[in-house]
Amino acid sequence: MSRIVMKFGGTSVADLDRIRNVAARVKKETDAGNQVAVFVSAMAGTTDQLVKWVEEISPMHDAREYDTVVSAGEQITSGLLAIALQDMGVPARSWLGWQIPFKTNQLHSAARIEEIGTDELIRRMEDGIVCVVAGFQGISDDNRITTLGRGGSDTSAVALAAAVNADRCDIYTDVEGVYTTDPRIVPQAQKLDKITYEEMLEMASLGAKVLQTRSVAMAMNHGVRVQVLSSFTDKPGTLVVDEDEIVEKQVVSGIAYAKNEAQVTLVGVINKPGIASDVFTLLADGNINVDMIIQNETEDGRKTDLTFTVTENDLEKAEKILNDADNVEFSSLMTDSNVVKISVIGVGMRSHAGVAATMFKTLADKGINIQVISTSEIKISVLIEAEYTELAVRALHTAYGLDGE
Amino acid sequence: MSRIVMKFGGTSVADLDRIRNVAARVKKETDAGNQVAVFVSAMAGTTDQLVKWVEEISPMHDAREYDTVVSAGEQITSGLLAIALQDMGVPARSWLGWQIPFKTNQLHSAARIEEIGTDELIRRMEDGIVCVVAGFQGISDDNRITTLGRGGSDTSAVALAAAVNADRCDIYTDVEGVYTTDPRIVPQAQKLDKITYEEMLEMASLGAKVLQTRSVAMAMNHGVRVQVLSSFTDKPGTLVVDEDEIVEKQVVSGIAYAKNEAQVTLVGVINKPGIASDVFTLLADGNINVDMIIQNETEDGRKTDLTFTVTENDLEKAEKILNDADNVEFSSLMTDSNVVKISVIGVGMRSHAGVAATMFKTLADKGINIQVISTSEIKISVLIEAEYTELAVRALHTAYGLDGE
Repeated sequence: MSRIVMKFGGTSVADLDRIRNVAARVKKETDAGNQVAVFVSAMAGTTDQLVKWVEEISPMHDAREYDTVVSAGEQITSGLLAIALQDMGVPARSWLGWQIPFKTNQLHSAARIEEIGTDELIRRMEDGIVCVVAGFQGISDDNRITTLGRGGSDTSAVALAAAVNADRCDIYTDVEGVYTTDPRIVPQAQKLDKITYEEMLEMASLGAKVLQTRSVAMAMNHGVRVQVLSSFTDKPGTLVVDEDEIVEKQVVSGIAYAKNEAQVTLVGVINKPGIASDVFTLLADGNINVDMIIQNETEDGRKTDLTFTVTENDLEKAEKILNDADNVEFSSLMTDSNVVKISVIGVGMRSHAGVAATMFKTLADKGINIQVISTSEIKISVLIEAEYTELAVRALHTAYGLDGE
Repeated sequence: MSRIVMKFGGTSVADLDRIRNVAARVKKETDAGNQVAVFVSAMAGTTDQLVKWVEEISPMHDAREYDTVVSAGEQITSGLLAIALQDMGVPARSWLGWQIPFKTNQLHSAARIEEIGTDELIRRMEDGIVCVVAGFQGISDDNRITTLGRGGSDTSAVALAAAVNADRCDIYTDVEGVYTTDPRIVPQAQKLDKITYEEMLEMASLGAKVLQTRSVAMAMNHGVRVQVLSSFTDKPGTLVVDEDEIVEKQVVSGIAYAKNEAQVTLVGVINKPGIASDVFTLLADGNINVDMIIQNETEDGRKTDLTFTVTENDLEKAEKILNDADNVEFSSLMTDSNVVKISVIGVGMRSHAGVAATMFKTLADKGINIQVISTSEIKISVLIEAEYTELAVRALHTAYGLDGE
């Protein structure tokens, strides 16, 4: 017997037939003797409709009221799934965020989970009752509904899995798992049976849409075994686990790309202590997320060039902030939004030399110019011209021996 | 300064424009210096959609899950109205049933209000904040959402008005008030400025759709002044008040009719103590609501005829129950579903003789046969053949001097 937390996204519960399909999957787990808690998102389209209403009625809306409105989507699905399960003879009931309670801070629409009440849920699961939980929502100290913001449903499922000490957290989605790269670009891309938290984290932050970064980070911190799998097939998915669990480590597990990056270079910045801090504090205050940061030595040492990337949407705002700043001196500001970030990811590269060299040689052989390089322990990222995206991804996928049939 | 509870039904909040219209009406009250709590229903159509989903996913659904799903409708509207009010510069926030809390018993989908937490609401109203309350919902002892069933929104508004000692409870709907009779039948029908609780109760139970019986009974018990008015015009509506408040009492205030009645007569029932009890206990156990009951003396005294009315929908079931019963003896069972109940209502008839005589003479003059007569202190009801409905209502409206321009 295992204790399992299952989570189904909006497309998996898009209509009544799919909700019944979800109920049938849950029943399989209970028939196998497992204890189950199920998280559900809102039916696909519902959240968009609710958000649209809120924004139409006032662009400057109260986030607490936004949360009250938007959380209704998951409330509806949780009740419907509980009924569908009961209809199949599976004892079940729904819990809303405030009923569990799923305590969060007061940062409405982007709340952080602080504490989860698990006594009742564990008792009910032990009694053989499927606990259907409305994802994405919680309750703040002042007794108001909060929502967790982007990725909140995955995160709430993983958080509950950690809190109830679940053996596995199955995230059902519309893809079959995590692939070595985007199958739309490389048809030979292969589904990975297992991937480490660290690799998944890099992939997620690079735009592999299967799991949100926050949920992966939480799974890693609490050692929750996460499985990504499809609610439309019966195939096993990809297990996201600790490195120790993966016996045969690949040097490189995947090739990822992120298209909506823009590169900003401050040329001739006065090289004095605190200058990087000044620049990035300004951007952070303007709510701009910075991704890669590269600062290089220059010949004379008095001045330096500082390059970083932001999302394309934030580019204009970032330029304005830096041009208006009176505590940052530079000779010129160059931007390039026509770039893509290509990353090679793998925990195995820690113990293997030559991974970076292979990347650079492969790109050079195809005549692709590398504008910027940045590396972490398990990742090498480069910025290249956007039109080379597919060519680069395919070449690297082959070069690292990832091509399947 | 007054303290006012306002309530808007589904058609009044059917879309964003109408929600803004509601917000404007609320603003008028706060601009006039009044303290306001507003109850909202779900947007027209939303509740129907949610109920349909629940019923489709399982005809035998758990009422607790039904309530979880269906209460989402009012949740959405309450958040949207709070935002619309804030957008107009009116301080406002939403409260859901469980946040107030609106404590009910555990009779899900038809819950009864037991206690309302008013401290916070009163404090907020005194601070000038409009309290937007999701109608129709509450919370049970076991921390689950309940809904109040038919008429629940009106009832929750009146209950809150009583609890916070409001000066008035304004029920906004799509008609302009209470009329002397159905204007579709009698174009000369007049809107009443005032009506007593007792009269309203008789009218409501007779199918005048403007207020639900439960809410009128509650208003009467707690002395809540209720106003029925339209959210689409600026005219004053009808005040439902205590008899003392009406100086110039009409002998007859209105003519009501109920079309979906069916008459059942048990002929030759053995006349012994407890027989009526046996018959109506059987029907009550079968969940059949009985309206009029008429038992008459017969010549020999050993046998009697017992007539009563049920709704047309329940007729077949009632017949079956009585024919199958082994503790009720009768010679034959006659039914007639081709009847209408016509009622003349007015608190003034207590002190006026001849009201009944006028009714019988008016009907006789038109050649209408009266099948059954039943009276209460402020009402005379008759059953007649259904095809005479309009003729009878018009003739009575004229006979009691109710015709307007």
